[in-house]
Amino acid sequence: MRFLTAGESHGEALVAIIEGFPKGVKIEASFIDNELKRRMAGYGRGKRMAIEEDKVCIISGMRNKITLGSPIAMLVKNRDHNIFTQKSDNLKGLHIPRPGHADLAGYFKYGDKDLRNILERSSARETAARVCVGAVCKQFLSYFDIKLASFVTTVGKVSSNLKPKNVSDILRRTNKSAISSIDYAKERLMMKEIDKAREDGDSVGGILEVWAEGVPPGLGSCMHFDTRLDTKIAAYIMSIPSVKAVEIGAGFDYARMRGSKSHDSIFISENNVHKLKRKTNNSGGIEGGMSNGDTLVVRIGVKPIPTLVNSLPSVNIVSGRKEKASVIRSDTCVVEAAGVISENMIAIAIVESFLDKFGSDTLPEIKRNYNRYIKGL
Amino acid sequence: MRFLTAGESHGEALVAIIEGFPKGVKIEASFIDNELKRRMAGYGRGKRMAIEEDKVCIISGMRNKITLGSPIAMLVKNRDHNIFTQKSDNLKGLHIPRPGHADLAGYFKYGDKDLRNILERSSARETAARVCVGAVCKQFLSYFDIKLASFVTTVGKVSSNLKPKNVSDILRRTNKSAISSIDYAKERLMMKEIDKAREDGDSVGGILEVWAEGVPPGLGSCMHFDTRLDTKIAAYIMSIPSVKAVEIGAGFDYARMRGSKSHDSIFISENNVHKLKRKTNNSGGIEGGMSNGDTLVVRIGVKPIPTLVNSLPSVNIVSGRKEKASVIRSDTCVVEAAGVISENMIAIAIVESFLDKFGSDTLPEIKRNYNRYIKGL
Amino acid sequence: MRFLTAGESHGEALVAIIEGFPKGVKIEASFIDNELKRRMAGYGRGKRMAIEEDKVCIISGMRNKITLGSPIAMLVKNRDHNIFTQKSDNLKGLHIPRPGHADLAGYFKYGDKDLRNILERSSARETAARVCVGAVCKQFLSYFDIKLASFVTTVGKVSSNLKPKNVSDILRRTNKSAISSIDYAKERLMMKEIDKAREDGDSVGGILEVWAEGVPPGLGSCMHFDTRLDTKIAAYIMSIPSVKAVEIGAGFDYARMRGSKSHDSIFISENNVHKLKRKTNNSGGIEGGMSNGDTLVVRIGVKPIPTLVNSLPSVNIVSGRKEKASVIRSDTCVVEAAGVISENMIAIAIVESFLDKFGSDTLPEIKRNYNRYIKGL
Amino acid sequence: MRFLTAGESHGEALVAIIEGFPKGVKIEASFIDNELKRRMAGYGRGKRMAIEEDKVCIISGMRNKITLGSPIAMLVKNRDHNIFTQKSDNLKGLHIPRPGHADLAGYFKYGDKDLRNILERSSARETAARVCVGAVCKQFLSYFDIKLASFVTTVGKVSSNLKPKNVSDILRRTNKSAISSIDYAKERLMMKEIDKAREDGDSVGGILEVWAEGVPPGLGSCMHFDTRLDTKIAAYIMSIPSVKAVEIGAGFDYARMRGSKSHDSIFISENNVHKLKRKTNNSGGIEGGMSNGDTLVVRIGVKPIPTLVNSLPSVNIVSGRKEKASVIRSDTCVVEAAGVISENMIAIAIVESFLDKFGSDTLPEIKRNYNRYIKGL
Repeated sequence: MRFLTAGESHGEALVAIIEGFPKGVKIEASFIDNELKRRMAGYGRGKRMAIEEDKVCIISGMRNKITLGSPIAMLVKNRDHNIFTQKSDNLKGLHIPRPGHADLAGYFKYGDKDLRNILERSSARETAARVCVGAVCKQFLSYFDIKLASFVTTVGKVSSNLKPKNVSDILRRTNKSAISSIDYAKERLMMKEIDKAREDGDSVGGILEVWAEGVPPGLGSCMHFDTRLDTKIAAYIMSIPSVKAVEIGAGFDYARMRGSKSHDSIFISENNVHKLKRKTNNSGGIEGGMSNGDTLVVRIGVKPIPTLVNSLPSVNIVSGRKEKASVIRSDTCVVEAAGVISENMIAIAIVESFLDKFGSDTLPEIKRNYNRYIKGL
Repeated sequence: MRFLTAGESHGEALVAIIEGFPKGVKIEASFIDNELKRRMAGYGRGKRMAIEEDKVCIISGMRNKITLGSPIAMLVKNRDHNIFTQKSDNLKGLHIPRPGHADLAGYFKYGDKDLRNILERSSARETAARVCVGAVCKQFLSYFDIKLASFVTTVGKVSSNLKPKNVSDILRRTNKSAISSIDYAKERLMMKEIDKAREDGDSVGGILEVWAEGVPPGLGSCMHFDTRLDTKIAAYIMSIPSVKAVEIGAGFDYARMRGSKSHDSIFISENNVHKLKRKTNNSGGIEGGMSNGDTLVVRIGVKPIPTLVNSLPSVNIVSGRKEKASVIRSDTCVVEAAGVISENMIAIAIVESFLDKFGSDTLPEIKRNYNRYIKGL
Repeated sequence: MRFLTAGESHGEALVAIIEGFPKGVKIEASFIDNELKRRMAGYGRGKRMAIEEDKVCIISGMRNKITLGSPIAMLVKNRDHNIFTQKSDNLKGLHIPRPGHADLAGYFKYGDKDLRNILERSSARETAARVCVGAVCKQFLSYFDIKLASFVTTVGKVSSNLKPKNVSDILRRTNKSAISSIDYAKERLMMKEIDKAREDGDSVGGILEVWAEGVPPGLGSCMHFDTRLDTKIAAYIMSIPSVKAVEIGAGFDYARMRGSKSHDSIFISENNVHKLKRKTNNSGGIEGGMSNGDTLVVRIGVKPIPTLVNSLPSVNIVSGRKEKASVIRSDTCVVEAAGVISENMIAIAIVESFLDKFGSDTLPEIKRNYNRYIKGL
Repeated sequence: MRFLTAGESHGEALVAIIEGFPKGVKIEASFIDNELKRRMAGYGRGKRMAIEEDKVCIISGMRNKITLGSPIAMLVKNRDHNIFTQKSDNLKGLHIPRPGHADLAGYFKYGDKDLRNILERSSARETAARVCVGAVCKQFLSYFDIKLASFVTTVGKVSSNLKPKNVSDILRRTNKSAISSIDYAKERLMMKEIDKAREDGDSVGGILEVWAEGVPPGLGSCMHFDTRLDTKIAAYIMSIPSVKAVEIGAGFDYARMRGSKSHDSIFISENNVHKLKRKTNNSGGIEGGMSNGDTLVVRIGVKPIPTLVNSLPSVNIVSGRKEKASVIRSDTCVVEAAGVISENMIAIAIVESFLDKFGSDTLPEIKRNYNRYIKGL
């Protein structure tokens, strides 16, 4: 499986094509729309989120909601695109790079002083197309009881150390939370962090976790550096705009632990040699580049949104004079949205590794291959 | 550019092929050998490091030390390989998976009860081949004054917050350090952490940083998730055995910062619009998936080696009975080695992005394209 | 550069995404539309060609007709798609595989007795998306005076041995031809072949040539089997539905020639060592997997359309009984259309190799790198 | 599965790495050696073939002859390599490009007047590494009774139209032939063509066919242009030095046929709906980009070797003066060798498509998936 995305922030639409997706999978557009909605929601999102109401338009790859094995093309139209595509462009040229954004590096790379030509694509709006891809993948994974969820652990200076029991526990708790937290005690404080930042015309970062349950052991590989599951997950997560850090399992905390206290000892479960179990999951479900049957646990660090109302010192690249960075309507905190995107990117990574192992032609064939493998464990 | 590696830990040799490397680059085998030596050295390495004395054998791709543009094949022979390849195998079958290793996940995936058939390739010995590839890349980068260095910031419970000035500063300080630290005050304490762990038959993890200086702006891309430089770096670093965490720039610390305090403001330098400078480098040299001209800063979390003298509880997968995990001669701490490997993996990532931007046929052509681009900035 | 296509024959639209296309290239939708029109035209095309009037809809990757360096998404809507996407499907299930089509092999592979689920994507309608990609590439190539044209040499039993002088000659002659022939003497006979086949409810195949002029020497590579230009061209051409044969230059005729009579001797032109010329072009412009500066000449064999009015013996895969193959409205001869598609696929192959050599960020940068290279020859 | 090859014609060795090959496959080095021997043999080969006696050296990926799932590295040492790698190079610089070779295009591309730096890699010697890869693949295919063979149909002006019954028939007949022909009546005439060319200091081309029997239906895909089996085969065949033409099944002859006379009608065999059979095989075993269960038939056109004793007019690129092209010891006809290489490249293509369909982890798992699929047909 592979995919490409396209589309500018104020272009006509975002587009994704998935190639190599199996035949016979039921795909509900409403599920995709719900993921798109989750991506836009979240405490701390800005005005555009109110403007946009993303709906996927499935162009190809299905008949009566069942995949055909052919490439799946999806569109998400932009509501406020008309300006960008007209010749008399109301969106004026931008010349003051925003620190933390692609603007300045993009100006160097592409040599274009109209920064709009960079930022239209580097905008995180693009992740809507990825969420479409991920939402298709999640529906495939549901046939194999693989479930994902995310929750926020840190917003600004407020952190929660509460650990959930499992994915259902995460879902139950975050569904009741206004900020995708599982820690009711910290929720208010997190929201306050955002409120204060907004009042100051500032933005704030955060940390989140994604858990994926039901992943069979043996996805990925220990045989080559680029076929490892952790390689793929790290890549897919770091590719999300604003993400600057990724950990699997105990991550950086491993550094401070002894081997004897950190590796997940192996135990017999139910007097059955084939039922080997762990009591801990510091590995985050990946050992030697392969899933080991435990829950995938990925922790993700998100930087504050670089577009600020009280904008940062910068330089006008046309005039060469000091100016405050351009201000574009913006969010205050995107850590929840980053959680939705991360879930979906990890869903894609799991599906790709899953299809590598079990074939990719048709759902019935994949199910057979999967069941036989699981039975053999 | 792309590359494959091959070779088992006790096989005849490790092998790498690099395809798409430019013609006309001078490659010294002695430089590669030195990187291999650095990989094996480090406080806390075990007995094998004394046995092995890695030497690269360049099989193809060069004539009189100058690359031809053809694939570069390199071999590193294993000294103690003869056992593995003989039919009467003195290396006995192993049946007790070591927690933290590929053993158990590999057993699930490949269904082979002789765990040696998994661990021979999942062993970190494989990284010697990657270091050969990276050491070739470093020699290419030296034509463009791109320099890399790594240093250890944490070993077990001992952490240093000292920041180096630049790559030369790192090199000068780590050259004098027995443990690749830049912090003379913490060096002894770090070594003690390792000594104590060794005495206890235990192992210990750590954290390290890689800095890459001189990277021109505009490598990578903001146009597609998988062409970003940070995507590639995260993938290449997380693919290293024992690595469980990767941060770029301020990484997880961004989460706790406000946007106004974290993004690197842009200033005019020397009254010249083209000389745009930052006073901080929280971005770690990457914005919008592209290098921005600042030093790349990557922080890497390394778990304790999972092979322990006082080994962990496990289960014999043949007998189905509880047993202590297999013991193989081992290291106590590999964070320094991980630093060398990380430098080399990042060198590869930079070269790949560099060639994408400037072409890849010949060094003179690449130099011309590069110089013209730099002049235009 | 890479691209994906999507879309079924009676789905809502065909879609293409091109990723890695340079910034700064002017793209006219009208040029793409003209290529789409050429694809549909041709003596011997059937009813659908009258129904469809393909227009490209550019969704992303451009602003005011200038590429942004971001992925280019394009749509071509299907006029008669509404049936396919409705639940009450008027396009009845098809159960009788057509010999020569994907139907039977697809049934085996995907295990679906409703052959419509196979043939909707295996239909040559998909090539409209590829033509969009190729038409974008042709516009890039025009900056470097690289021109392509195709002409028909054989229809059924009628063959022409006339050789054109160059691409302009092909264009001038085929523009006046009702059947994309350069041989006025044979034109009528070719058309008669098609008329007779149509009268008989039959179809007929053909042979065509694509010429590409102005390709600089040194595209492709002799260094690895899969980076050769001839490898890419053979792949891209054979991937076109109905194509069963591909030759470069003298192709199969080489087999019957002596080396001394077939290889293109090298001569000095204009007393200038740098102006090395050939008097013949049996190589078809490719030696050692690289363009050599001469005109690319590719000859392509096209089979008769497998959907016949007087359809062939087959078997109903539901009833298990002998039946005549399903009849779908169809063309009689598609050799001209195959010419248009082949031109466009070769344009893509050239652009990919071109960008590999000269970089791919921006047109001005590519032009500089190209000009410097050409000057150095 | 993917692979890279490395190695110069007079370098130390040729090298190949195969990544993604399944675990549990028995590989005999002697089988590979035999394929290497077949590659060197053939009526019309020159002196080097007497010097070289290729033996594969398997460096990794196996234990006691059974693959481990890890990358397979193989070496074939060059006997006369010592000259190339020494500083005082007895192989003098070459400055006169040979028409038909990579020499001139390579000079343009790489800007190096010492043509040895081009021709060392562009030499067909490199195909020995590919034959190693193919010979590993053939051993995998033998578990599934997939067999390949090749035979020569044309040498210079002598052609045979005799068709074999099947692969066994080809093997039986070519084993008795001095020139890999199945046509005893033409064999002498073919050899005479070669003898005459050799006497004249000339070379001669030819045509050959590869047949692959036992390929299950459904390999490749009709869903995307670059996942088709015919795309892959065309690419892999055209990548062989000296190959300039490739046909599948009736190939160019289709052009002259009516649809009703050329497509392979479908019949019921043995009153069993699941046993659908063809009486003809014009498709060459591929319809819609997928194997259809019939024998793959690929016809390949090979040009005369471009290195001639009576060499062609050329130009010394250093002096700028007319000179005869460089003469290197050479063969007279390589069509038989091209047959061996083609078999092996097609074996690789089949294995790659096979693993895409049935998974790629272990032979037992692949066998299970395969058997279940075959049963379901």
